[in-house]
Amino acid sequence: MAEARIGLTGLGVMGANLALNIAEKGFSVAIHNRTGSRIDGFIAEAGVLSDRFVVAPTLESLAAALPRPRAVIIMVKAGDAVDAVIDLLRPHLDAGDVLIDAGNADFRDTRRREAALLAEGFQFIGMGVSGGEQGARNGPSIMVGGSQEAYRAISEIVEAIAARYQGLPCAARLGPDGAGHFVKTVHNGIEYADMQMIAEIYGLLRQGEGRSTETVMSLFEEWNGGPLKSYLIEITARVLAARDPETGQPMVDAILDRVGQKGTGRWTLIEALKLGQSVSVIEAAVGARSWSAAKDLREIGAERLTGPRAGEIGPALLDADLERALLAARVISHAQGFALLSVASAEFGWNLDLARIAEIWRAGCIIRSALLDDIAGAFRNPPPGNSLILAPAFVRILNDDVGSLRRVVARSVLAGLSVPALSAAVGYFDTMRRARGTGALIQAQRDFFGAHGFERIDRDGNGFHGPWSMTRSDSGGHRDGF
Amino acid sequence: MAEARIGLTGLGVMGANLALNIAEKGFSVAIHNRTGSRIDGFIAEAGVLSDRFVVAPTLESLAAALPRPRAVIIMVKAGDAVDAVIDLLRPHLDAGDVLIDAGNADFRDTRRREAALLAEGFQFIGMGVSGGEQGARNGPSIMVGGSQEAYRAISEIVEAIAARYQGLPCAARLGPDGAGHFVKTVHNGIEYADMQMIAEIYGLLRQGEGRSTETVMSLFEEWNGGPLKSYLIEITARVLAARDPETGQPMVDAILDRVGQKGTGRWTLIEALKLGQSVSVIEAAVGARSWSAAKDLREIGAERLTGPRAGEIGPALLDADLERALLAARVISHAQGFALLSVASAEFGWNLDLARIAEIWRAGCIIRSALLDDIAGAFRNPPPGNSLILAPAFVRILNDDVGSLRRVVARSVLAGLSVPALSAAVGYFDTMRRARGTGALIQAQRDFFGAHGFERIDRDGNGFHGPWSMTRSDSGGHRDGF
Repeated sequence: MAEARIGLTGLGVMGANLALNIAEKGFSVAIHNRTGSRIDGFIAEAGVLSDRFVVAPTLESLAAALPRPRAVIIMVKAGDAVDAVIDLLRPHLDAGDVLIDAGNADFRDTRRREAALLAEGFQFIGMGVSGGEQGARNGPSIMVGGSQEAYRAISEIVEAIAARYQGLPCAARLGPDGAGHFVKTVHNGIEYADMQMIAEIYGLLRQGEGRSTETVMSLFEEWNGGPLKSYLIEITARVLAARDPETGQPMVDAILDRVGQKGTGRWTLIEALKLGQSVSVIEAAVGARSWSAAKDLREIGAERLTGPRAGEIGPALLDADLERALLAARVISHAQGFALLSVASAEFGWNLDLARIAEIWRAGCIIRSALLDDIAGAFRNPPPGNSLILAPAFVRILNDDVGSLRRVVARSVLAGLSVPALSAAVGYFDTMRRARGTGALIQAQRDFFGAHGFERIDRDGNGFHGPWSMTRSDSGGHRDGF
Repeated sequence: MAEARIGLTGLGVMGANLALNIAEKGFSVAIHNRTGSRIDGFIAEAGVLSDRFVVAPTLESLAAALPRPRAVIIMVKAGDAVDAVIDLLRPHLDAGDVLIDAGNADFRDTRRREAALLAEGFQFIGMGVSGGEQGARNGPSIMVGGSQEAYRAISEIVEAIAARYQGLPCAARLGPDGAGHFVKTVHNGIEYADMQMIAEIYGLLRQGEGRSTETVMSLFEEWNGGPLKSYLIEITARVLAARDPETGQPMVDAILDRVGQKGTGRWTLIEALKLGQSVSVIEAAVGARSWSAAKDLREIGAERLTGPRAGEIGPALLDADLERALLAARVISHAQGFALLSVASAEFGWNLDLARIAEIWRAGCIIRSALLDDIAGAFRNPPPGNSLILAPAFVRILNDDVGSLRRVVARSVLAGLSVPALSAAVGYFDTMRRARGTGALIQAQRDFFGAHGFERIDRDGNGFHGPWSMTRSDSGGHRDGF
């Protein structure tokens, strides 16, 4: 007795909004929630859409309400809860049915779950959904990982509910197994970096130059009309416009500066490390969130550690320099993120289409921006090593704007204002534009103390050693030295 | 028929030197190697010490040569090889025998191996050995993890072969199970950071200011007589003194700038992330090694990406500024490493004595330095949160010297010279000396798009939300916007 087109279990903020979005596009949805009481409220708020929902009090009735092959979206807290739901649901499913995990799963869990479910004849999709609650309701960016066959069962719905960019849905099957969740993880990593860089510029303006929230708000609004145009710049302006209803002061000033995180930023870094990559701007952003939590130590630090005081930044930085600095750093940060996607794709055999990823990030998701359209264009003619900083369009931007980034970073460092993400961006740029770096010294040190061997500039092969014994002092150091 | 005091299998560079060191201290050693041919060469080179070795052609004979409880050091490549040796050795052992993994194991493997071996009645020690081949031969720093009982079986030997600092052995049991290998991993992370910061200063001098290797060598020699006194500064000078026998040019100039790594740097970062910490200076160092490998991309970058050229750094940086900058950054980098040890100790129940760790790093290991004696002193009266940058002795140094670090970083960034580790150090410092950072803006953004909630400065509790709907634009963004 199939009554609904698709099922969904987990009516939290994201699940409820996704269900409403699906219903609005004309698809009937069987809905289930572990605690049934939430369902009544959901239906009450669904208004005119309420008749498109079939309430399933149990997972058994959820399965009974769906045509075969069934498609069931799971939208619960990432981690064990997903395994628990799968275990409870499985007895009520048949071969060929498709389970869709739409939460922020660790892609390694997705790979494991897919393998286990495939072995039992089921289909599994790991689906990254970005856009927050508004995105889920009105059109998110959707990153799908799973088999072509599994995706066919839900593609019509997925593409109907997704955000649109110039009419094209911001949803795609990006590759098999964990590809969708991995791409979503890296999306979030880039989001961490973007938010941190915006916060650093905000810090320069407010703490360094003492500008008011209104002035800073106007600046972000202005920037949102130029090459920095993006959701995060837009909402920064809107956040700064908000007043605390209780105090009448700027809302942001009443908020404690201790930043939460749910793990996707860290996952991005751990996977990058496992792949031998460094996404240093994201690292700086994740690090800054960690340090923000150490509020008590920062309060002691403020008493004991000296340095230039807030307001001592000197002559005002040019607004144009700040805009260009942020644009250059944003390009560099995205370049690191896409390079990571490229390396992961090769490692896991995903064959990711980087241009397509940039395309479906152009609307709906948190990092949507004008820049992503340029990135999509750049990947249609892939730069060396899929490194965006080497793509002609971005070479031009960087060669024009990194000078501004240098000035902003240098001035901030001299003024005692913390800009770890912007610093990391310029550090990567300057490393990658130098054919010969300083690594030869490190290789010499490693060979000196550990006989690790090195390569030479003038011939092939490795495992060469230096004539260190001629200069080595074995007199001290080990026994009764330091 | 016990003939030797202790056994050792794995006569690679480290194993052979460790065996010679043990023999020299008067202990007889039963030695085994998977490929027996290496043993003959070893005995031939052992000279007067050769009669202190018992050659064991098989693991069975190795076990037969030892008194019970047996102690066998395993010195093979970290990873599967260790498990393989344990599996082969186990049938020849008896309850109470002690296996000692002296390689660079991942501490999680050490925990797993210890649990498995304890369950079978054996004892297991994970022993970090630092000092390279010279250290292994003449006195390494030795970080032991395992039970008190297991350590008693080998403490006499371990303390005899270790480096000495003012007569005290640089060896200690630091805690149970993986404690020794974890501490060794973090030691190596700090080592990565120190090498990278030295390389950055070297880059400023040679690439930025065009100084000769001789001049730079003299500078490092001079610094080695002051507060930077350390093995890595000392060998930097020695490395720079070496000439390539084939070309007569400075040896370092013939070495390819592609840096190898064996994993301990990455492990440090992954564990820090899992513990919610950021060791940003080590991150920068590991990242720099990753980027050094992308030589082909850097060569393209050098053609396409512009910026100040080498030599355009401007007026020479003051040598005193460079010295102070490096000292301040070294303090900060060590502070991050010790903070990580402190958090890991709480997480894994190790009860690490941070002062003791600093003490046994004062001689023998690669990061041995004058600074570590000061650190040992600082931890005898632990600073808030075990954060060294808040310890009075280091507050003084930092307040005196971070100004130099600021100038060096700012000048380098303006000059287009890459200083990611030095930048990371100053970024951490400036974050930790600010009671109110910029995290409130990020919390506002997160609440705006994801309803994540925030804390307020003026009352307890969390899960507060801002009045964003007043300023929220739902007009575009999701459908046909960006």
